[in-house]
Amino acid sequence: MIDQLAEINELFINGPRFYLQNVSVDNVIFGYHEKELKVLLQRPQTFTRWILPGGFIKKTETAESAATRVASQRTSLENLFLQQFKVFSKPGRNRDELYTADNLKQLTGWDIPPDHWMLQPFVSIGFYTLTEFSKVTTNGSFYMEECTWWDINALPALMFDHAEIIAEALKALRIHLVHFPIGYELLPKKFTLPEIRTLYETILEKELDDRNFSKKLLAAGIIEKLDEIKKIKGHRSPFLYKFNRRVYLDALKEGMMVP
Amino acid sequence: MIDQLAEINELFINGPRFYLQNVSVDNVIFGYHEKELKVLLQRPQTFTRWILPGGFIKKTETAESAATRVASQRTSLENLFLQQFKVFSKPGRNRDELYTADNLKQLTGWDIPPDHWMLQPFVSIGFYTLTEFSKVTTNGSFYMEECTWWDINALPALMFDHAEIIAEALKALRIHLVHFPIGYELLPKKFTLPEIRTLYETILEKELDDRNFSKKLLAAGIIEKLDEIKKIKGHRSPFLYKFNRRVYLDALKEGMMVP
Repeated sequence: MIDQLAEINELFINGPRFYLQNVSVDNVIFGYHEKELKVLLQRPQTFTRWILPGGFIKKTETAESAATRVASQRTSLENLFLQQFKVFSKPGRNRDELYTADNLKQLTGWDIPPDHWMLQPFVSIGFYTLTEFSKVTTNGSFYMEECTWWDINALPALMFDHAEIIAEALKALRIHLVHFPIGYELLPKKFTLPEIRTLYETILEKELDDRNFSKKLLAAGIIEKLDEIKKIKGHRSPFLYKFNRRVYLDALKEGMMVP
Repeated sequence: MIDQLAEINELFINGPRFYLQNVSVDNVIFGYHEKELKVLLQRPQTFTRWILPGGFIKKTETAESAATRVASQRTSLENLFLQQFKVFSKPGRNRDELYTADNLKQLTGWDIPPDHWMLQPFVSIGFYTLTEFSKVTTNGSFYMEECTWWDINALPALMFDHAEIIAEALKALRIHLVHFPIGYELLPKKFTLPEIRTLYETILEKELDDRNFSKKLLAAGIIEKLDEIKKIKGHRSPFLYKFNRRVYLDALKEGMMVP
């Protein structure tokens, strides 16, 4: 705890030596499991409204690295799929009750001048991250009282422009879904056709044509049929499939049309 | 010229009072005309390599406003279609021969300390803009010796990561093209079906199925057939079409599938 306070004081005093000013990242961490889509949010100490995980960008790293760091800290998972989608820059967007000279003084014990770098306007680079939420161990951070999953259709009151950031992330994810494969991080290694279709349907919030959908994924070579079935009691046992990693990665780079 | 120098000196000395630090915009201004797709580039005084139009963001404006300002200055056109597509943040990306303490001293006559805000790392928010290049009157800016169109497939040597920014802009434009209508800024008020198809084909660099393409645009209500033909000598005269502004704007906001 003392280490953490020392680190925070260092950030307050010498931040601009190590971090970019006026620009930060916010990360919409989506969690999928069976038919549910959730978002990871945190609630700062003594506040009732929630915020997205986010952070500053070191001068020695990319925005992607900063967003990756945030996602790994909060979820305890590595190698997550992460996508930059939009920048939020409306003047006054980060003026709120959260970051004020008074609050920062309370937190650090320091007198914070009104032109302090952390009270300056911040442009936020929005990222989204895909996770399988049953695999995630959530971690808050210093200053955060709670860090937990919320259903995408029942979000709590949010600070700043974070409701807008989530809405835009979902819009971007739905467009990306048409051009790039997803599923590696969200499905078991071996899965059935209904399982992968349900994933797409949950994110798109619409039903997809059963046969067309699988036909496209198979024709593109993204998924491959295995010589194995999944045993389901009282049902006809469906075949299992797996991703073709090479084709999948190429499609992530080059784009394609999926659903 | 004296006014411009005074303005530049003010920018050098008091920049951080009015502008965001460490973050700027770059604008890939595409120009379309008949079957050609070009990009507007500028060449700084005494340099041989070219750069994209770009600029700083005022603390009182959004990144979109900054990119709009840049596009209007360079093209002399207002109400251009502009789209944010990606942020570029690789450390060292703006280190080059262009912005050095020596160069800035030559330009301003001032001694520039190595920690001067303009020599700091800059993250760039990439935008693209669509124009009809036969309507554009290009304007350079102070410090730029040339400002001119280059064919998308025959670009000159570029500074910084600007070749990558153009490649990513084109990739993003091609994906957006599938989800959002374009053409308002690029075609005459009344146009033929081959004219709008050629626009899409030029940007996508591939042929589209004639009948499917028009059927989709008509079914979506994006374009409407007029009771007028375009007279072309020695050819069968084709019907003219126009955009339905309301449907077009809705589709821009909500997304759809076009080609």
